[in-house]
Amino acid sequence: MFNTLKIENAMKNIAILGTGMVGDALGTKLVSLGHKVMMGSRTADNEKAVAWTLRNDSLASNGTFADAAKFGEIIFNCTSGQVSMEVLQLAGRENLQGKILVDVANPLDFSKRMPPSLSICNTDSLGETIQRQFTDVKVVKTFNTLNCQLMVNPGALQNPGNIFICGNDAAAKAEVGDMVRSFGWENIIDLGDITAARGTEQLLPIWVRLMGTLGTPMFNFSIVK
Amino acid sequence: MFNTLKIENAMKNIAILGTGMVGDALGTKLVSLGHKVMMGSRTADNEKAVAWTLRNDSLASNGTFADAAKFGEIIFNCTSGQVSMEVLQLAGRENLQGKILVDVANPLDFSKRMPPSLSICNTDSLGETIQRQFTDVKVVKTFNTLNCQLMVNPGALQNPGNIFICGNDAAAKAEVGDMVRSFGWENIIDLGDITAARGTEQLLPIWVRLMGTLGTPMFNFSIVK
Repeated sequence: MFNTLKIENAMKNIAILGTGMVGDALGTKLVSLGHKVMMGSRTADNEKAVAWTLRNDSLASNGTFADAAKFGEIIFNCTSGQVSMEVLQLAGRENLQGKILVDVANPLDFSKRMPPSLSICNTDSLGETIQRQFTDVKVVKTFNTLNCQLMVNPGALQNPGNIFICGNDAAAKAEVGDMVRSFGWENIIDLGDITAARGTEQLLPIWVRLMGTLGTPMFNFSIVK
Repeated sequence: MFNTLKIENAMKNIAILGTGMVGDALGTKLVSLGHKVMMGSRTADNEKAVAWTLRNDSLASNGTFADAAKFGEIIFNCTSGQVSMEVLQLAGRENLQGKILVDVANPLDFSKRMPPSLSICNTDSLGETIQRQFTDVKVVKTFNTLNCQLMVNPGALQNPGNIFICGNDAAAKAEVGDMVRSFGWENIIDLGDITAARGTEQLLPIWVRLMGTLGTPMFNFSIVK
């Protein structure tokens, strides 16, 4: 009885911004854990979002970016880093205000050629850019350094490695950390404030290279000491 | 008898460019393995280089950057990334020609404040810059993603993690890989050509952050799959 209550209290209304592989995988996982999840996209009838809702149970729904942001107590930015700022504008400042924004995106720029470069890096990051533009949102950067199939299934690797987390709000990081642990992750490294997003986003160039070398996206960084 | 010959054949004349912690640690390790090592600096009587020579046995010597480059069959760039190009000019194009240059440096810029930024990154790297400027040198980038005390003593960690290596010349990479293995390293990941230096140099921002978080520089990246 007590456990049931505890679990029910932990259930959240969650917004997934983006209908790509990452949003699909995270949304599906969150529904499987009992959360109510709304997937947001540019239009309320986005085909991929509708298909995702149909594939999932009654906890799943979809709508516009603004619908989803209004619905969510916690918002996951699962959009391409190149459009994240535009999407967050569409989601609406008033719908994001005071909430936790989990930024899973990377500012990968594929416009020139392979390998992709980063459109923001070195002395800035996407995570910091979002935090600067939305000062009353609690931005927590995590899950941006591994493939989405591994994010939702750490058991796929014998040693799943580390998840990095950073952000300015300690309570928000703790809450997101608990959610990451609910996916089965154990080894979470808190890198401090949101400026650490420079470090995690700049892991992408070697990540892309390693995917080619190893021939699989199912790998991760483990910090050994 | 045969083994002795084999070992003697593997001994090389090696140049260490730079008198900092990295040059000191690598030079000392290479002498301990039986190589003849000359440490190069701006002046032939650099105090740190003289002290290093005195601390090591008769296999150690020191001189100018040009003396060392002329002496070495393999040259280690252990200078600060901010001065590497200038140092290689001082070492002399004619002294580097056709040789293996092991680039251990990172283009860390501490001039503004902490955390350091990278003076070259994203669509270029220090390793590539060196290769472009010295087209007839075989640049092999390695050992730039961990602390120098760990470079020379992988046994310091129960799981020492990975060493990344990249470069355009396969034979040069194989030779440097053998040298890395002679230090006790087992898990070397060949990332391909020198453009992969973008990836390994961009590991530095999270490396610096992790050093603060973990409270020690004795850690490494391990790729788990």
